[in-house]
Amino acid sequence: MAEGTNRIEAFSDGVFAIAITLLVLEIRLQHVGVEGSLWASLVALWPYYLAFALSFFVILVSWIVHHDLMRLVHATSRPVQLVNGCVLAYVTFIPFPTSVLAANLRGPEIATAVAFYCGTFVLGSGAFNLLLETIARGQLFRPEVDAQTIGRVRRGYRMAFTIYVAATLIALVAPWWALALNVAVRVHLLRMRYKPVPLVAR
Amino acid sequence: MAEGTNRIEAFSDGVFAIAITLLVLEIRLQHVGVEGSLWASLVALWPYYLAFALSFFVILVSWIVHHDLMRLVHATSRPVQLVNGCVLAYVTFIPFPTSVLAANLRGPEIATAVAFYCGTFVLGSGAFNLLLETIARGQLFRPEVDAQTIGRVRRGYRMAFTIYVAATLIALVAPWWALALNVAVRVHLLRMRYKPVPLVAR
Amino acid sequence: MAEGTNRIEAFSDGVFAIAITLLVLEIRLQHVGVEGSLWASLVALWPYYLAFALSFFVILVSWIVHHDLMRLVHATSRPVQLVNGCVLAYVTFIPFPTSVLAANLRGPEIATAVAFYCGTFVLGSGAFNLLLETIARGQLFRPEVDAQTIGRVRRGYRMAFTIYVAATLIALVAPWWALALNVAVRVHLLRMRYKPVPLVAR
Amino acid sequence: MAEGTNRIEAFSDGVFAIAITLLVLEIRLQHVGVEGSLWASLVALWPYYLAFALSFFVILVSWIVHHDLMRLVHATSRPVQLVNGCVLAYVTFIPFPTSVLAANLRGPEIATAVAFYCGTFVLGSGAFNLLLETIARGQLFRPEVDAQTIGRVRRGYRMAFTIYVAATLIALVAPWWALALNVAVRVHLLRMRYKPVPLVAR
Repeated sequence: MAEGTNRIEAFSDGVFAIAITLLVLEIRLQHVGVEGSLWASLVALWPYYLAFALSFFVILVSWIVHHDLMRLVHATSRPVQLVNGCVLAYVTFIPFPTSVLAANLRGPEIATAVAFYCGTFVLGSGAFNLLLETIARGQLFRPEVDAQTIGRVRRGYRMAFTIYVAATLIALVAPWWALALNVAVRVHLLRMRYKPVPLVAR
Repeated sequence: MAEGTNRIEAFSDGVFAIAITLLVLEIRLQHVGVEGSLWASLVALWPYYLAFALSFFVILVSWIVHHDLMRLVHATSRPVQLVNGCVLAYVTFIPFPTSVLAANLRGPEIATAVAFYCGTFVLGSGAFNLLLETIARGQLFRPEVDAQTIGRVRRGYRMAFTIYVAATLIALVAPWWALALNVAVRVHLLRMRYKPVPLVAR
Repeated sequence: MAEGTNRIEAFSDGVFAIAITLLVLEIRLQHVGVEGSLWASLVALWPYYLAFALSFFVILVSWIVHHDLMRLVHATSRPVQLVNGCVLAYVTFIPFPTSVLAANLRGPEIATAVAFYCGTFVLGSGAFNLLLETIARGQLFRPEVDAQTIGRVRRGYRMAFTIYVAATLIALVAPWWALALNVAVRVHLLRMRYKPVPLVAR
Repeated sequence: MAEGTNRIEAFSDGVFAIAITLLVLEIRLQHVGVEGSLWASLVALWPYYLAFALSFFVILVSWIVHHDLMRLVHATSRPVQLVNGCVLAYVTFIPFPTSVLAANLRGPEIATAVAFYCGTFVLGSGAFNLLLETIARGQLFRPEVDAQTIGRVRRGYRMAFTIYVAATLIALVAPWWALALNVAVRVHLLRMRYKPVPLVAR
């Protein structure tokens, strides 16, 4: 029933690559008034550049995390395909909260926009946690992956989920701090994984 | 004349991945009035979220079904390339009925929108049935795939086609039931295939 | 200097898959007036469906032709990369003349729109001819590909170029006949190639 | 810690292919007034065609340069993944300065638009230089790549960076010359690399 992970990875890679590239479509001169010089308009678009950079980083880290996980897996199954679909749905959805964020970074609704943005990551992190558990339950990890490694990945995923929930709440009162927290947790995720993950040759 | 299925699969995978990622472009704040709070606008977009989730599921299941079929095939041919093109045309078309559905889920035209949405699946299912028959006629199934397996796939495809026709008719009088039927048939398709498909190593 | 064709094919496949999927973005309810029923609007969009189907077929055939050509090639070079870039520029451009065609199929400017649409194929076919000659001049065909096969491909490419020029001129007086000619030449191209091309195993 | 470069290349290829295909979405009849004939409108879109061709060439050359670099690398690392992400962010961003350029090629703001366009290449070239140094510092070049080759690539990258800075300044007084300089440096880059790069079989 199980098959290799090549095709699910290729499909996922495609979705990540497309979602990360669609982000630029939200940056448009029409979003700012056309009065004033072109230079002033380009400068006034800074919330869109910032949201672009932030979400680019978010999707890039998701891609890295997804692949670090898939490197530990030797086979896929129907439940994994479906839960992985939930992860991908989250990834493809990101351009929308990004556009909401960009349009409201300067306005009175910034708290709502950032909370919505962070709330998306709560769902996404939930999907990643579900994917991890589905893989674990289906015993689809490579034989050389020991329980300690899985435990470390699981702790990282749960920590991220908790922090995204916190960031969503913080956003309601201190939106910029919530955004900073989002960057910080991802930098931490990257560092954690960078260190002594056992080398799984492919 | 025949060649392996690697390249047709890679091309198809790309099309599925892109179509599924384009769905998010239909979700835009401009679709709802800008009066009221941002939160109210985000909530008012629920038909767009629902249509996004529904069509994401539809394309994901189509991708799984497509690959389950291609796993049984050992070679491609010119007719298969063309009929597979019809399947892909159906997949790339889905974002349009999705946007029609989202824009009309709350309005007086919901029956028409859902019928149009379901009607697309009739055409798509027709293309899948045609693909199956083209493969069978060209004797392109792997030698280890027995007639019984092909028969089971064929029955599943024909059942799906019949149900999509029924859903299109039901949509005219009970659109929400038609949408539920669409989800149910796909869950059934996933289950059916999940069970004792003979393992075809790749 | 030469390297295999895997990566240029993967990149080209990506471009073909994306261009063919972007076609649907041109189909929008806003293109027709919102007065009248939804059903009437959906019917009034027929020029957009037709243009979508036509250009989908065009890009699909281009993809098949491109791969039939690349199957005969064993290595790539800098000039091939650049000329292949011209072919891809043509492919990614197609959505624009498609939208021009769709918007004018019913109007008084149909002759201009179809001539512009066909003119794009003249440029595209020119790029394909240039690609063939660049491959031939660089002696990049597989050793088992004999001069007769190359000659047959060349005749096919030149015939297509001539017919696209003719179709562009015909479009100015009989646009629907020009569109029909476009379909006919591609069906012919598919048939020609389908027959006794020597089997080049990969 | 190190793994092969297959997956980072596949992901990068996807991003390049999508960014290059999105360029066409900026060409729209709505950008020019609808008064006058369709033919006049199509002709009036020439700045959009020119910007499309220019940016298509830019992304194509970036793709070639990226792959020429990756051919010399035998493994990836976390820092390489992140810096490569910066290169990809630059590539996906290109459609936006392209649209700014197209909208202002005929207007009084052409100097600002071209400077913004060239300034993007300064950032992009900076990312490429950073990628090169990250690979060098991580000792990820293939063993058969000698210091002389790396030195030649480094000189090419630094020269390109310098010229993009110069082009950005020149754009403020002579925008068309700045655009010409952009094309010239890329033609030079292609030529330089074309010559005696040691053959690294894959």
